[in-house]
Amino acid sequence: MAESIIVINPNSTTACTDAIDNAMDPLRMTGGPDIECVTMTEGPPGVESQHDSDSIIVPLCDYMRGRDNDAGAFVIACFSDPGLHAARETTDHPVLGIAESAYMTAMTQGEKFGVISILEPSVKRHGRYVRQIGIEARSAGDRAIGLGVVELSQEDKVLDRMIETGRALRDEDGADVLILGCAGMARYRDRVSDALSIPVVEPTQSAVVMALGRLRCG
Amino acid sequence: MAESIIVINPNSTTACTDAIDNAMDPLRMTGGPDIECVTMTEGPPGVESQHDSDSIIVPLCDYMRGRDNDAGAFVIACFSDPGLHAARETTDHPVLGIAESAYMTAMTQGEKFGVISILEPSVKRHGRYVRQIGIEARSAGDRAIGLGVVELSQEDKVLDRMIETGRALRDEDGADVLILGCAGMARYRDRVSDALSIPVVEPTQSAVVMALGRLRCG
Amino acid sequence: MAESIIVINPNSTTACTDAIDNAMDPLRMTGGPDIECVTMTEGPPGVESQHDSDSIIVPLCDYMRGRDNDAGAFVIACFSDPGLHAARETTDHPVLGIAESAYMTAMTQGEKFGVISILEPSVKRHGRYVRQIGIEARSAGDRAIGLGVVELSQEDKVLDRMIETGRALRDEDGADVLILGCAGMARYRDRVSDALSIPVVEPTQSAVVMALGRLRCG
Amino acid sequence: MAESIIVINPNSTTACTDAIDNAMDPLRMTGGPDIECVTMTEGPPGVESQHDSDSIIVPLCDYMRGRDNDAGAFVIACFSDPGLHAARETTDHPVLGIAESAYMTAMTQGEKFGVISILEPSVKRHGRYVRQIGIEARSAGDRAIGLGVVELSQEDKVLDRMIETGRALRDEDGADVLILGCAGMARYRDRVSDALSIPVVEPTQSAVVMALGRLRCG
Amino acid sequence: MAESIIVINPNSTTACTDAIDNAMDPLRMTGGPDIECVTMTEGPPGVESQHDSDSIIVPLCDYMRGRDNDAGAFVIACFSDPGLHAARETTDHPVLGIAESAYMTAMTQGEKFGVISILEPSVKRHGRYVRQIGIEARSAGDRAIGLGVVELSQEDKVLDRMIETGRALRDEDGADVLILGCAGMARYRDRVSDALSIPVVEPTQSAVVMALGRLRCG
Amino acid sequence: MAESIIVINPNSTTACTDAIDNAMDPLRMTGGPDIECVTMTEGPPGVESQHDSDSIIVPLCDYMRGRDNDAGAFVIACFSDPGLHAARETTDHPVLGIAESAYMTAMTQGEKFGVISILEPSVKRHGRYVRQIGIEARSAGDRAIGLGVVELSQEDKVLDRMIETGRALRDEDGADVLILGCAGMARYRDRVSDALSIPVVEPTQSAVVMALGRLRCG
Repeated sequence: MAESIIVINPNSTTACTDAIDNAMDPLRMTGGPDIECVTMTEGPPGVESQHDSDSIIVPLCDYMRGRDNDAGAFVIACFSDPGLHAARETTDHPVLGIAESAYMTAMTQGEKFGVISILEPSVKRHGRYVRQIGIEARSAGDRAIGLGVVELSQEDKVLDRMIETGRALRDEDGADVLILGCAGMARYRDRVSDALSIPVVEPTQSAVVMALGRLRCG
Repeated sequence: MAESIIVINPNSTTACTDAIDNAMDPLRMTGGPDIECVTMTEGPPGVESQHDSDSIIVPLCDYMRGRDNDAGAFVIACFSDPGLHAARETTDHPVLGIAESAYMTAMTQGEKFGVISILEPSVKRHGRYVRQIGIEARSAGDRAIGLGVVELSQEDKVLDRMIETGRALRDEDGADVLILGCAGMARYRDRVSDALSIPVVEPTQSAVVMALGRLRCG
Repeated sequence: MAESIIVINPNSTTACTDAIDNAMDPLRMTGGPDIECVTMTEGPPGVESQHDSDSIIVPLCDYMRGRDNDAGAFVIACFSDPGLHAARETTDHPVLGIAESAYMTAMTQGEKFGVISILEPSVKRHGRYVRQIGIEARSAGDRAIGLGVVELSQEDKVLDRMIETGRALRDEDGADVLILGCAGMARYRDRVSDALSIPVVEPTQSAVVMALGRLRCG
Repeated sequence: MAESIIVINPNSTTACTDAIDNAMDPLRMTGGPDIECVTMTEGPPGVESQHDSDSIIVPLCDYMRGRDNDAGAFVIACFSDPGLHAARETTDHPVLGIAESAYMTAMTQGEKFGVISILEPSVKRHGRYVRQIGIEARSAGDRAIGLGVVELSQEDKVLDRMIETGRALRDEDGADVLILGCAGMARYRDRVSDALSIPVVEPTQSAVVMALGRLRCG
Repeated sequence: MAESIIVINPNSTTACTDAIDNAMDPLRMTGGPDIECVTMTEGPPGVESQHDSDSIIVPLCDYMRGRDNDAGAFVIACFSDPGLHAARETTDHPVLGIAESAYMTAMTQGEKFGVISILEPSVKRHGRYVRQIGIEARSAGDRAIGLGVVELSQEDKVLDRMIETGRALRDEDGADVLILGCAGMARYRDRVSDALSIPVVEPTQSAVVMALGRLRCG
Repeated sequence: MAESIIVINPNSTTACTDAIDNAMDPLRMTGGPDIECVTMTEGPPGVESQHDSDSIIVPLCDYMRGRDNDAGAFVIACFSDPGLHAARETTDHPVLGIAESAYMTAMTQGEKFGVISILEPSVKRHGRYVRQIGIEARSAGDRAIGLGVVELSQEDKVLDRMIETGRALRDEDGADVLILGCAGMARYRDRVSDALSIPVVEPTQSAVVMALGRLRCG
């Protein structure tokens, strides 16, 4: 199958793209679609505000338009799902957002999902999006670790905060499944899940799985 | 009071800005704030798709940043409320969106609001936004007249379709208050209201009223 | 413009009317409508129960009927919005309730509103009303300061409790905008907002702003 | 058992009280509580507006206060549930509203309830109340027969309209259980149910059943 | 009246059936229907998991089919309402579930209900059911005492935990009415209510009251 | 990879299993998991009532227990998702329901989903489930074609009714994505989608895609 899934990291931090790329390995199957992860170099180092998120929509759609001939499906690998609906107008290929896909996936793994976010403003942005999707009845909470995208490489510090935040979501807010609220958190998934004994959904994987389904089932 | 309310029409159709400007006259009071209506010339002729809406966020925020010193408050005069939350990060002045303001105003005038939109894709976009705001319990429906922004100057045709669409919202969907789903429809408000005998909310007026309140009450 | 906005304090505490009247000053503009604040002397000293709220509906509507010729719009200045829908049947002039207007205004200033109420029974009453309006998705919480309407003049005590209550709404319940849950709290607005660094909505101002919009825009 | 259930018809139409009284017969059991139906002579001939509904709250509470010593429980037999929460503050005895009880009962008999109302304004009033109760997910619709309370004795006309209205609720709105939206419709229940082959809930019966439960189970 | 209400305890613990039977005494009236409580001996000792709940549906429906000629109405006396909708297909007699009935009854006694459950998995199961019924706007919370059905006879331990759990529901979650989340808790109702000064709904009583209404009112 | 996805058709109609098996072909990839489709011979010919759905839970869970050692994941291929939560208690492997998965998948392909069901009782059953999942804000409607499971092989008749039903969901109810409400409808997917020009979600494919994701991503 010649078609491929193009996973676009809309921030310019290549360490983030590398982390995403590693997380894709289990989904690379002989006989399955290629999964290509790219960095959108025009993006900000991290998407941390609504303005960051909105400002990358035009270049993101331009990029997709340029790759339209060699793509089978696109995944927007930023947990704000920037430009998801604009992108769906731009191309006839399936476009999946990692937040939307993660929420959908989490709802099959628990009664109430909790989101581990990077910074406080993300929490409000996600709140608006959860209402937009229409699934607030299933949301337990959303809490920030207080570290930005470029700080996500500070392994010990990040892991500690993620576990602490996940514990609050589980014990105080009643979450029984967690979602990583940033594509750059992929590497911490197993450790957070092991530490807290509840499933943790990695959003880019969720979206690529759905993209694969769309590609194969037409 | 030196401060002014800057009403930004983010499409490049000056006829649309003129219509908005006329609708502002009743809100211009001797001792009240100035109300200045401007056209964002970088915008598309009309905001008719999600991509149109998203693509004007960056220039809109840039424009606000440039006017930050002489503005008291900003109003984004497009019913998609493009960049509303990005704009609120950009400036410390109050920023009102005309859709948000119109929904809030309509809920004080009836049990269920109906929206008269321009084109079919607007209906889905508005649907996402109504859920995002969290007020779908008060929405009766949203129907398109099937004419784009630049066609809004065809008086007779537009008025006929608006009345017909408003009647369907009232009689089939149960709306008891209507909202004009495009800033460019302002001139038709009174005639639609008279023809259907229910209140019709003009969104830019709603937003400027709220902006005035924010300016005066601090 | 000869028409005026009549703001009716339906409790008999004139100190409360005076506080409301002061809060109206910024909205009195040359060229704008008169804003007249009146005390409904038949009312109880404070509206603290559902029975208090319901018992003033008949005299309130009678009063409006008597003033129908010289009014442009009415504002019911009690946070229970007593008789709002009965009043709208009674007169053809716009009638605004301060709770409804405050909720609508707050939703343009934050993601989740918190209400500072006087006494515990108000919290349940407001809860019913928030569901009736259909906006519970935007409510963070409602907490009482434990002081009745006539005690609202005890400046230091009231201010301390309001700040403490507002802090709980902000930090424990997640409110990012507060609403004063009693017309008699108007004088404390700026100090609460300054102490907590989040916007605080004064409900009578919200309603008068909306009334002004209705008067001017027809 | 000496205690009795006092069913108060808050309109002054004794034919309405008689119809209610007849509907109570099946619930009068040898060892069960007395069921006394009374007419509140101060009430309007029918409760047809929000103002009608609100204006009877004070006399209704006064009446309950006067009967507090010989009552076991009170039922407010008007489908607007006027003064339900004020009454619950007024007496320590259980107070049931017939609309609230009917909605609760209907939800155990079908997936979606439809309400047969008297006049158009009732529909909006009921809509606010369904949201206040928080059960709009279970509401199929509410439609008026276009006849007022005093016209409910015109047997053939009323029955025809009720069946026609119920059919629209069933076939167009998807109701699988109907509720009579006025205490004065009690006599038509069986005929409407037979004609449409779906259950029809008589609200005063629903409330008296619940009152009986409260009385016996303490 | 020859018809009777058959209350089926679908677990095999006869002590549980006895407790239910005692709770029925106040509802046994001369002239009223018989109330017969039976143990479904094929059931598990207690319904503590979704599998327990689902596994008793077939025998429960078989049992009802066998008793169809001598029953007037059936009550399924397990707070998971196992097989409620299957049972309603099986027999033409009214079938009431105790959870559904308890929720409906509680909503007439307070603004927000809290549920005292046996074990943690019940909480998730109930959460799904509250959403299914469509009443989550009225739910304050659901908390487990951490004791299984067969342990419910350990009076002191159970009572302490119930009061402690009810207090958390009241003070931390905002419940103003409690529901016993297991038929086997009936004997503790009055003591929990007295200790916490808020109403406590016993679910089998709620269902039998509704069954009685259905039997008498046809 | 030795692990396989076991897709269980819980009805005894092998034609239905064959249709499912064919629909799985695009998801069979060289390096991906095996997908085995089995018929649960103890099941009824079709799951058409709540009782049918509930009665297969015990044998379904027994079957899974027996296959626990050679399974990687299970899919319950009946649109009622019978026993989904009981199954998740029964095995530690991922268990996906086809309705849940289809709803989640559809929400990434349109604003409002419509379900094409077999018979009228399914519509009510699905309605309860949509509320249980908490996604009714995204549901446009659910309509039955009026043919049972064993009639699904009557190609022309079934296809005509599916297209007619899908058209009503699209044009009257506002659906912009359709879901096949029965596993046995898989063969009609492309023809319905082509005829109506909107995406149609085949539920067993949706579930197997999600199962594949769970298997690969751990």
